[in-house]
Amino acid sequence: MSQPLTIALDAMGGDRAPEAVIEGACIARVRHAGLRFLLVGDEARIGALLARCPELAAVATVRHTVEVIGPEDRPSVALRRGKRSSMRIALEAVRDGEALGVVSAGNTGALMALAKAVLKTLPGIHRPALASIVPTRRGETVFLDLGANLDCTAENLFQFAVMGEVFARTVLGVIKPTVGLLNVGVETTKGNKTVQAAATMLQDDRLPLEFHGFVEGDAITAGKVDVVVTDGFTGNVALKTAEGTMRLYSEFLREAIKHSLISRLGYLLARPALSALRDRLDPRRYDGAVFLGLNGIAVKSHGATDALGFATAIGFAVDMSKEGFNDKVVAELSQWHADQASESEAAAL
Amino acid sequence: MSQPLTIALDAMGGDRAPEAVIEGACIARVRHAGLRFLLVGDEARIGALLARCPELAAVATVRHTVEVIGPEDRPSVALRRGKRSSMRIALEAVRDGEALGVVSAGNTGALMALAKAVLKTLPGIHRPALASIVPTRRGETVFLDLGANLDCTAENLFQFAVMGEVFARTVLGVIKPTVGLLNVGVETTKGNKTVQAAATMLQDDRLPLEFHGFVEGDAITAGKVDVVVTDGFTGNVALKTAEGTMRLYSEFLREAIKHSLISRLGYLLARPALSALRDRLDPRRYDGAVFLGLNGIAVKSHGATDALGFATAIGFAVDMSKEGFNDKVVAELSQWHADQASESEAAAL
Repeated sequence: MSQPLTIALDAMGGDRAPEAVIEGACIARVRHAGLRFLLVGDEARIGALLARCPELAAVATVRHTVEVIGPEDRPSVALRRGKRSSMRIALEAVRDGEALGVVSAGNTGALMALAKAVLKTLPGIHRPALASIVPTRRGETVFLDLGANLDCTAENLFQFAVMGEVFARTVLGVIKPTVGLLNVGVETTKGNKTVQAAATMLQDDRLPLEFHGFVEGDAITAGKVDVVVTDGFTGNVALKTAEGTMRLYSEFLREAIKHSLISRLGYLLARPALSALRDRLDPRRYDGAVFLGLNGIAVKSHGATDALGFATAIGFAVDMSKEGFNDKVVAELSQWHADQASESEAAAL
Repeated sequence: MSQPLTIALDAMGGDRAPEAVIEGACIARVRHAGLRFLLVGDEARIGALLARCPELAAVATVRHTVEVIGPEDRPSVALRRGKRSSMRIALEAVRDGEALGVVSAGNTGALMALAKAVLKTLPGIHRPALASIVPTRRGETVFLDLGANLDCTAENLFQFAVMGEVFARTVLGVIKPTVGLLNVGVETTKGNKTVQAAATMLQDDRLPLEFHGFVEGDAITAGKVDVVVTDGFTGNVALKTAEGTMRLYSEFLREAIKHSLISRLGYLLARPALSALRDRLDPRRYDGAVFLGLNGIAVKSHGATDALGFATAIGFAVDMSKEGFNDKVVAELSQWHADQASESEAAAL
């Protein structure tokens, strides 16, 4: 790419903004050569931080605003009132072609609402989805939707599958990603009408997608497939349940080890191994949920993210932009619809 | 209780039947004084096992049948064909008053379908639910529905909450159990129409139930409430996701420890602590999902259960029978409906 790639950052979103955002950009600048930034937020605070990272200052433009969407603000409030908010201005920079993607660690619901309003959905996509990359026993799996759409139709799930597959292929580099539909059993007869109808659509041979069929909740961490698709209600609950289980296990482990002097000594010896484990499961490695299906790239970093996590989130936005994620989704869906149409025509002759 | 309590066992259900079933009964007999058993299945195989546990033989009656419902049999097949199956005959013994409860480690879907057909639902309950006890950071939480009802109305969720609360109170002995409704956020505005309507019903002051409001997926293992209510699709996915996460963590832990000689030595020293941890999370301690809302007690033991797990499942059936679980649910719901009716009458005057 000869043109420089610009990413807009909501410098004021998240618990540790603007520090984590600017320091995250500092790290991302080193990781992605030629990257430029549009930093939206309080000029004075951003300027003070930029003074500590002149290399970043050299490739960054600051757009001043003092308005910020708070973590408790309802999406409807963000839509009505946040006209001059750092989040909205960053999104508008993508809409206006000044930046290819936006990254924010702010309020998820507000980001979803504003991103839909400002960027609109891609042609052929009815509803955008929120996707995340989760660690598995075999590597990583793309998991969606995580809460953007609580009630989904079969058509929604079908479109999520297509987007998840393109994401795994273009951003994670999986050659021929397999897609599973989350259900209460793997048998083809299992599940409600919605997952049944979605499975029928996904079995279509003309679709350039490896549909594995139904998978159960434990398939996510087992890494049985590269993409796991579900509605936003189930996906949100499953993701938070997994986070809670992880915390339960590590707390029980700590308590078990503290129980005797000998096991504490054992712990001291095994500590480097255990801290390697912690690194492997470090949420900062998986920071960032991506909104798929919008007319522009939008990545959500964790609200409690630090600089490292924010840099990872920027990395997703860069990869999606460079790989032309959106163009590929649109091309794939329109090709499929064209195939369907020509087949119906042929059938009508 | 002066009359002896009899539990019917599907001696042929589960991967390790009839061995795990008969050995489990042997353990349960010691735990629950005065307990009697009706063992349904292959007389020759059961007899050979009883010969090894004469104390059990003294309090058991065997009802012979060779028909067994397989793990892959669909519920509809079990309903049409399993007329002489060990599972159905055990359920009929409860219906006919020969036993107060039934325990089976067989096919869950078939057990649900047969239990509904044979026992029918309790007055005031539209649909039975499948509940389980899960370990948390503060103790144990009752979690339902786990897959008996994929699509739930607000009324279904309301009834699940009432049953879960009575279960926590009477079987787990929690003095004033709190109930949470699973959702994608804790704010009152979150969620779809169904959980919104269910929350409105549960907020009713006349209900003798401590409604905590909405909880997120990580609240389950955090033990934020004593009862977590959700629809069967979400509950099934969440439970299996938690199981998968547990496996992922312990596998990563094993790999991390194997990585160096020193950490292996540390592991040797910490091994007793780690095996205590394993015991604490041992699924056999939590074996058994209970069907709530049927006109009779029905407990499902894990398909892969061993004798210890099966004995735990028998324990649930015994506790529910002794504590009059079903009577309490019926009384609570009818009292609530009576209050509602008299209030509407008063309002109409």
